[in-house]
Amino acid sequence: MIGSGVSIVGAGMVPFGERFEASYEDLLLDAWDALLAGTDGRVDPDRIEAAWLSTALGGLIRREAVTGASLADPLGFHPRPVTRVENACAGGSDAVRNAAFAVAAGAYDLVLVLGVEKMRDLPTRASLIAQRGTMSHLWWHPRGATSPYLFGQHATTMMAEGRITREDMARVSVKNHDHGRLNPNAFMRKPVSVEQVLAAPPVCEPLTVLDCCPTTDGAAAVLLCRSELAGRFTDAPVELVASGLATDTMYSHTKPVFGAQEAPTRAAADAYKMAGIGPSDVDVAELHDCFTVAELLAYEDLGFCERGASAAWLASGAPALGGSLPCNPSGGLLSKGHPIGATGVAQLCEVFWQLRGEAGDRQVDGASIGLTHNVGGNGQVCCVNIARRG
Amino acid sequence: MIGSGVSIVGAGMVPFGERFEASYEDLLLDAWDALLAGTDGRVDPDRIEAAWLSTALGGLIRREAVTGASLADPLGFHPRPVTRVENACAGGSDAVRNAAFAVAAGAYDLVLVLGVEKMRDLPTRASLIAQRGTMSHLWWHPRGATSPYLFGQHATTMMAEGRITREDMARVSVKNHDHGRLNPNAFMRKPVSVEQVLAAPPVCEPLTVLDCCPTTDGAAAVLLCRSELAGRFTDAPVELVASGLATDTMYSHTKPVFGAQEAPTRAAADAYKMAGIGPSDVDVAELHDCFTVAELLAYEDLGFCERGASAAWLASGAPALGGSLPCNPSGGLLSKGHPIGATGVAQLCEVFWQLRGEAGDRQVDGASIGLTHNVGGNGQVCCVNIARRG
Repeated sequence: MIGSGVSIVGAGMVPFGERFEASYEDLLLDAWDALLAGTDGRVDPDRIEAAWLSTALGGLIRREAVTGASLADPLGFHPRPVTRVENACAGGSDAVRNAAFAVAAGAYDLVLVLGVEKMRDLPTRASLIAQRGTMSHLWWHPRGATSPYLFGQHATTMMAEGRITREDMARVSVKNHDHGRLNPNAFMRKPVSVEQVLAAPPVCEPLTVLDCCPTTDGAAAVLLCRSELAGRFTDAPVELVASGLATDTMYSHTKPVFGAQEAPTRAAADAYKMAGIGPSDVDVAELHDCFTVAELLAYEDLGFCERGASAAWLASGAPALGGSLPCNPSGGLLSKGHPIGATGVAQLCEVFWQLRGEAGDRQVDGASIGLTHNVGGNGQVCCVNIARRG
Repeated sequence: MIGSGVSIVGAGMVPFGERFEASYEDLLLDAWDALLAGTDGRVDPDRIEAAWLSTALGGLIRREAVTGASLADPLGFHPRPVTRVENACAGGSDAVRNAAFAVAAGAYDLVLVLGVEKMRDLPTRASLIAQRGTMSHLWWHPRGATSPYLFGQHATTMMAEGRITREDMARVSVKNHDHGRLNPNAFMRKPVSVEQVLAAPPVCEPLTVLDCCPTTDGAAAVLLCRSELAGRFTDAPVELVASGLATDTMYSHTKPVFGAQEAPTRAAADAYKMAGIGPSDVDVAELHDCFTVAELLAYEDLGFCERGASAAWLASGAPALGGSLPCNPSGGLLSKGHPIGATGVAQLCEVFWQLRGEAGDRQVDGASIGLTHNVGGNGQVCCVNIARRG
């Protein structure tokens, strides 16, 4: 990545779900233990030089602002540097990006990225419907503009333009729940049908509860190193070849269009350029399907299909397991869950396992290039990371 | 810095103080305008490629978690990447560190670092005394362990060991208010006497209100670039030669000692090593004097004097303007103020101006190496940045 190579040499996560018994610290320790367990004793934890930690709500919920050092404390990480990165739902991927810059700069040889969130402790209505705290209370919430509402605007526009139908959105939920059934780390592991999605309780027109990702607790971790050293830690390293981050205005009334998102489009373009590849080179992708319509938008924003062709591309079977570019083999946010600060890190865990052939029943055969697409706010920020086997 | 050079080519800040009429966005825009005004039209704002933004309380106070992109929105910064870094009171310096890594990695040529905080909108008792939100409410506040209390532990220990007296602490306040009188950007510009400090209302034994930095609104900005390009933007660039970050346990009961801080000591050692210098090479320093005792601790942690010799070193006049190593020529946090997320960035602004000979009445003659020391929490985190003229 960016001249000096950066590789991923370890990944671990907790099964996402309802973890009322676990604290932020418990979740991080479990993800850390899972990471270490996967390294066959070849990583000495004391050799890790620095950490980046992503949590969106940790500071809000805990009413504190020393979040990085505090949360890494139970790992015995001090006196080593810890930086908290917050970038809404895209914070996990941006933490990876910043950690990778530090390694590429030659500042460190081996660094840790952690992501964590506890969402279930909040009142359900606040966390599920409004995703309390992830949008500005000054601007959005007094106007009723919750996350499902803001993504509903894209859905309504795309339906009005004849680009997608209500059923197309439901089919994203069906596909991702089908994938998630195969993933022991996923929260919602039961298959759903198009009929069930359509008949589920409404959240915000046209989205039902099965169009929305579940409120989830979880944590994930990845270990990055200088590529020249990767062979010390693993026989199957994965290179992090690119990271693109982009932003957009936060105001709906100043957005030029709905049915397309500038930040993801720009982040992907930057990442493809940095990696020297195009969308057709991607073998497997983890997409930010916070709502079903968001995955359809992603197909187009990322160039997996032409603008306006997402429904047809989905119908072709391309993004399903067994298709030409499986999207969200992990089950995605819809099935696996969406603990905000952990999501981008967990997406990279899945890509790491896919590129090493370790994804079990949900393995994408022969995948050598993987992409993560991690969106924050109303498409206000997006981070796209790209990894390559070897 | 770290192989590939990183230079500072612009700096701007708002006068710190009481800014009830200004929003977070207003403060950032004013700092940004001040930065641009200092660049003689040689910086095209559209050429800035990415930003890092530090705020500790922005997410808490605004009840949101897209803080970076939202706060940069009024600058017209989208679609460019914006990352929010939060590291308690040391977030501003850590934002500089992460931005520098990205430039050193070759990812960008020209990047912006912003820091901002509004503290005055909070109830005075909450913000002044408890520094509400900067310590974990889970651990500290239920136990009465506010910031003055935690630093008071150091003061009590150092007094009991006979290393400092109550008057030594007061002399730090006298010195920094003397310096701050000369700084138009400082909040508290009146001189104070030892007698006034001792007789001021008590906050937490042995600290009076004049031992504590004032609750302050403010914002600051610096512009970093690849050193090879610095000549395009200024005739007097300053090189950022090192950045060290370190952490400590958050728990007072597991700290091995009081009267010394591991994170600042470690961060400084790392920064000196990276810069290839020692403490005696430093010509000017901006120190994190959140409390008077914190500056005495800093002299020792940074190696400006031997452990235990801080009071004598202060009495020698060394850290005063005109001394051998002026500390806090800006007035420091005690006089200039401490808008949390902005502080580390504003410290680097002062060093930038000092190394360029632009510090007016508070200029340190011939300064060529400057250091910033930015502490978060109960010494739980510290970032030390070092800059060099040319």
